[in-house]
Amino acid sequence: MSSRFGTIFSISTWGESHGGGVGVVVDGCPPLVPISLEEIQFELDRRKPGQSKITTQRKESDTVEILSGVQDGLSLGTPIAMLVRNEDQRSRDYDEIQHKYRPSHADFAYDKKYGIRAWSGGGRSSARETIGRVAAGAIAKRVLSNFGVEIVGYVEKVHHLHATVDPLTVTLADVEANIVRCPDQAVAAEMLTHIEEIRKQGNSVGGVVGCVARGVPAGWGEPVFDKLEADLGKAILSLPACKGFEIGGGFGMTDFTGSEINDEFEADADKHVFTRTNHSGGIQGGISNGMPIVLHAAFKPTATIMTEQHTVDDQHENTTLKGRGRHDPCVLPRAVPMVEAMVALVLVDHALRQRALRG
Amino acid sequence: MSSRFGTIFSISTWGESHGGGVGVVVDGCPPLVPISLEEIQFELDRRKPGQSKITTQRKESDTVEILSGVQDGLSLGTPIAMLVRNEDQRSRDYDEIQHKYRPSHADFAYDKKYGIRAWSGGGRSSARETIGRVAAGAIAKRVLSNFGVEIVGYVEKVHHLHATVDPLTVTLADVEANIVRCPDQAVAAEMLTHIEEIRKQGNSVGGVVGCVARGVPAGWGEPVFDKLEADLGKAILSLPACKGFEIGGGFGMTDFTGSEINDEFEADADKHVFTRTNHSGGIQGGISNGMPIVLHAAFKPTATIMTEQHTVDDQHENTTLKGRGRHDPCVLPRAVPMVEAMVALVLVDHALRQRALRG
Amino acid sequence: MSSRFGTIFSISTWGESHGGGVGVVVDGCPPLVPISLEEIQFELDRRKPGQSKITTQRKESDTVEILSGVQDGLSLGTPIAMLVRNEDQRSRDYDEIQHKYRPSHADFAYDKKYGIRAWSGGGRSSARETIGRVAAGAIAKRVLSNFGVEIVGYVEKVHHLHATVDPLTVTLADVEANIVRCPDQAVAAEMLTHIEEIRKQGNSVGGVVGCVARGVPAGWGEPVFDKLEADLGKAILSLPACKGFEIGGGFGMTDFTGSEINDEFEADADKHVFTRTNHSGGIQGGISNGMPIVLHAAFKPTATIMTEQHTVDDQHENTTLKGRGRHDPCVLPRAVPMVEAMVALVLVDHALRQRALRG
Amino acid sequence: MSSRFGTIFSISTWGESHGGGVGVVVDGCPPLVPISLEEIQFELDRRKPGQSKITTQRKESDTVEILSGVQDGLSLGTPIAMLVRNEDQRSRDYDEIQHKYRPSHADFAYDKKYGIRAWSGGGRSSARETIGRVAAGAIAKRVLSNFGVEIVGYVEKVHHLHATVDPLTVTLADVEANIVRCPDQAVAAEMLTHIEEIRKQGNSVGGVVGCVARGVPAGWGEPVFDKLEADLGKAILSLPACKGFEIGGGFGMTDFTGSEINDEFEADADKHVFTRTNHSGGIQGGISNGMPIVLHAAFKPTATIMTEQHTVDDQHENTTLKGRGRHDPCVLPRAVPMVEAMVALVLVDHALRQRALRG
Repeated sequence: MSSRFGTIFSISTWGESHGGGVGVVVDGCPPLVPISLEEIQFELDRRKPGQSKITTQRKESDTVEILSGVQDGLSLGTPIAMLVRNEDQRSRDYDEIQHKYRPSHADFAYDKKYGIRAWSGGGRSSARETIGRVAAGAIAKRVLSNFGVEIVGYVEKVHHLHATVDPLTVTLADVEANIVRCPDQAVAAEMLTHIEEIRKQGNSVGGVVGCVARGVPAGWGEPVFDKLEADLGKAILSLPACKGFEIGGGFGMTDFTGSEINDEFEADADKHVFTRTNHSGGIQGGISNGMPIVLHAAFKPTATIMTEQHTVDDQHENTTLKGRGRHDPCVLPRAVPMVEAMVALVLVDHALRQRALRG
Repeated sequence: MSSRFGTIFSISTWGESHGGGVGVVVDGCPPLVPISLEEIQFELDRRKPGQSKITTQRKESDTVEILSGVQDGLSLGTPIAMLVRNEDQRSRDYDEIQHKYRPSHADFAYDKKYGIRAWSGGGRSSARETIGRVAAGAIAKRVLSNFGVEIVGYVEKVHHLHATVDPLTVTLADVEANIVRCPDQAVAAEMLTHIEEIRKQGNSVGGVVGCVARGVPAGWGEPVFDKLEADLGKAILSLPACKGFEIGGGFGMTDFTGSEINDEFEADADKHVFTRTNHSGGIQGGISNGMPIVLHAAFKPTATIMTEQHTVDDQHENTTLKGRGRHDPCVLPRAVPMVEAMVALVLVDHALRQRALRG
Repeated sequence: MSSRFGTIFSISTWGESHGGGVGVVVDGCPPLVPISLEEIQFELDRRKPGQSKITTQRKESDTVEILSGVQDGLSLGTPIAMLVRNEDQRSRDYDEIQHKYRPSHADFAYDKKYGIRAWSGGGRSSARETIGRVAAGAIAKRVLSNFGVEIVGYVEKVHHLHATVDPLTVTLADVEANIVRCPDQAVAAEMLTHIEEIRKQGNSVGGVVGCVARGVPAGWGEPVFDKLEADLGKAILSLPACKGFEIGGGFGMTDFTGSEINDEFEADADKHVFTRTNHSGGIQGGISNGMPIVLHAAFKPTATIMTEQHTVDDQHENTTLKGRGRHDPCVLPRAVPMVEAMVALVLVDHALRQRALRG
Repeated sequence: MSSRFGTIFSISTWGESHGGGVGVVVDGCPPLVPISLEEIQFELDRRKPGQSKITTQRKESDTVEILSGVQDGLSLGTPIAMLVRNEDQRSRDYDEIQHKYRPSHADFAYDKKYGIRAWSGGGRSSARETIGRVAAGAIAKRVLSNFGVEIVGYVEKVHHLHATVDPLTVTLADVEANIVRCPDQAVAAEMLTHIEEIRKQGNSVGGVVGCVARGVPAGWGEPVFDKLEADLGKAILSLPACKGFEIGGGFGMTDFTGSEINDEFEADADKHVFTRTNHSGGIQGGISNGMPIVLHAAFKPTATIMTEQHTVDDQHENTTLKGRGRHDPCVLPRAVPMVEAMVALVLVDHALRQRALRG
């Protein structure tokens, strides 16, 4: 059960970085949903390596094939299986790490867990695993659009560079206007320059991805363990390199008092209720309150760097290792579609859960 | 399925703040585990209201009764049901909120979700729900102790006051040495004074709880969706008022480069492998690496304050509301046992999952 | 997870025969459902011991207390916890079986599984466990009545005595007209006499319970593993002493050819589709087809008999054992409400699953 | 969640009869298990169409590709994805049923459930779906062999022809000695003749498959809802055309009294405990008792027959339909590997669940 996510709209991903391919089975998608190969491929292209000069230069077309669950462009209500073949596998880049553990990578932990490890390409710990998530997320987005929900993710911080983004108005076009995926175009340019510099150094940086879901009606989410922020947090923290999660004001809310930070309700002339501020990030008591859902995710610097580091081998002997192969100096641009996909998967599941409850 | 948590070692909590009581069913606890009513009650006493001058003065003995699953002090392997009766219910404190929505509370969202709301005492959104978690967590801790795992939670920030805590050495005794549950005794005294001041103002503050799990062997956790940090994140974010979660270095890791922040491996003379730093917080690729697991949780200021705020009623008319009743000016001291319980519940489940996988 | 059932509308039962009590948590019941203590108690009274001269004479009032999830007679949408205290516990009746394994009972298997066993009263293997199912089933029936579904169970065979029952017309009143719960009143009288005779002999008999669900719309059930007949089969086979399950024509269908046994479709003047025969038992391809769902469950003779049998003790020494205590000579009359409850729990879950899928 | 099975060792199947293919993802297989493509293909060949003159003549090689989760012939502990491409698709055979509902088929129920139907080849209701089960079952059998468990399925009844089979001694070789898969060679010859005759008539017959699992240790299975017989029952009843399930003596046990049918325990000289009879079928109280697990499954006659039958179309107009295409006159020979696979999937999951509980 290690590779499943969701309760009603649920997915199973599979696949190692080097091997037959990677994929996903989407189970629980309602019938009669328009399924567009182009929409799915669009999201995969936002995720794929080699898409720009600041991502890894590994070349993968990441062309998706839909194997089941769709007839004449409509979902059948049965499992939708999708497959992406692996193409660019340079196992020789990985020879050294067959026996040496890369610092801050999963190699050591995998060996202790399983007693065996797909060392070539990082196996299951590779970011290629997220292909299945992004493909499934594209379908989730399509279902959510019928509920009036729109999701936009964006880079808001790279290393020490902070962007200014208004979650109420940010658009996909703003995000896609530059290869950093930061909608603050001026700061995006600085980020781009910085990432290129970091790459030249053989080093890496991290940052923060923000994401907003607009149009979520009040009433989604469960009150106890499956609080919307809890499920969102799990979804986001399950992404590679993610180390922190905030809903709404997050850690910053601890700097204020209740009287400063509470979100007061107000009704407009049409008796539509909203909150004057949205420090809660659209969720109260685990349940959406109709305001935009806003979250933030911290991604650490890419673990693989091109400088020599201390480590141990699988005989527990001390040694050193210098990164090889093709890697992202900063995962943030490619993390944006991953974050959106995970948000979509959580929301669509809760949409269906609420429909089960109330009809 | 809204009130269930865990896969193998799993719990179901139930109960409203005002009503017959609250409780939990623990399903999946291994047999032959010593179950001590005193240990469970000890944890509940750390959580209960009225325990000190800086917690709510609502008086509840929170005396737990074990209804099943235990024979002569040993678990039977069958469900362990535990019940705590509600005692101190002043519904009159809640008359006004029967129709008015408390700002930053769950009232509005519950009404939209369910079309009905247990307004008295906050119903299911009350922190009383966490009684079941803490009782179950006490049992989880006992099982984990057989695996050599020890969990210690502590307050590390209240409003603008930061404590210095070493997760490698902090003890339960350090934490319980003051009613704030901050092991930095000097800062704890300042926090205490500050919370009392805030209470006199009818205001509230939040803060950050840290937690460490020491002794977790390498190999627990799943590589994809059920990454250890993802499950911990969900667990912690499901606690009332929690708005942020970090594993290891968290958001702060984004201020550094890979070469600064990677955790290099080293083997000692006994070929025991450790990392020279622990920015990863004991987890890599979703799987424990044998280092202490360290996490941080942000809790917002208590929503209920004693000053008048704008809000709406259930007819969507604008109105105002002033907090009444007895509330915590700062939830942090009582949040510590809750955080520990959730960490224990996640870890025990992954311990059993790993045992299923490898024996 | 050993004591959970259902996906959306789900239950967790707990409790040993001798101990604090038994109970259930119902999680996933929609809000605003009328919850009647009388309806629940009515079903429990149909299940309870001592209700007639042909059931065990153990005296239990089986009075249920609703602890949560209900306000002013309406479900809140939150977990509904119910508790029944144990009353009549004669542990001395069980002294001998503390160390001897009763033939065809669960004692031996429990000891091998858990290494510990609640020997007094049979612990968790006692039919008292079904109290939680029946109480939850009463709520499930109430939800289903809003979907137009009615469930009637009945005894159709006791030992060699076969009743004639028409599942299209049988009513609860027919069933409750005699203490055997067989709606064929003439055969019921014979069954009653036979069961009394068997009891005098210190022996036991089994039989077959039939059950019909009328009013289930076409479209419930899932096409693969969670076929409606598969979930019904699991539900029924999880009842104590149940050894066989049939949907529709069951094993008898193997005596015919396809041309004899296929259910041909026909539309009436209102274009309502039905099948001319119902050998399929209302389910095709795992999904309801709008015809009455008809099933049959085989219950073996009660394992406890008052004659001496060979067995072994927990030291694996050969010995003998003669049944003591108060036991049902035939479980069939009390099995009827259990079967109905399990059918209701399966159907209500699939009703909500279908609502999640299609709205 | 419609296409998932199992809790720890779990599978997700996908795929329609006509389309990109069918497949399965096995999640939860322990690492370091030898995975043999030949073993998997062997089982698929036992299931595939066109294997003999008494099965459908549809030609499919059913060649399986392992896409992930295996390295150098050993399982990695990560999801094992397997793919079988569809080959022989004669959609023209299905033109008529695009709008007409085949009697006793799933067509009508699918249309009511989903509002859309993959009419060509029966879509998801086709027996091709079981390819994923059988492939996964082959892996489950391999894991179980490490626990000492051996599973043998066999045909024991076709229409009115009954075989005599001893579950204690029956072998795979006995079963594979004829194309009916009935180990009673004399009766098998009669069955073969009868099935050929039935096929010439354009008719169909059903029958009963028996299955034994030898070597299951005492202690597997859960005591309440996930009783071993309940999970086995669900597994078997989820197979296409299965209408009945019995564990051990099943319905036949109702013809006897407790004193006649109880299984008395006995210990041999080595203090090994067994039961003198095995009417319980190796399971007591839902838990294995160390005796062979024996079950029986009823399969109805194939719904597709070559004679004209009454039915309705999707406008709910009365019409008639005569079967076309290539179909099995009797599914029993091909059902044997399916039954074995489902038994293996249940047992391996409970093996791992028990290991989680006790280590």
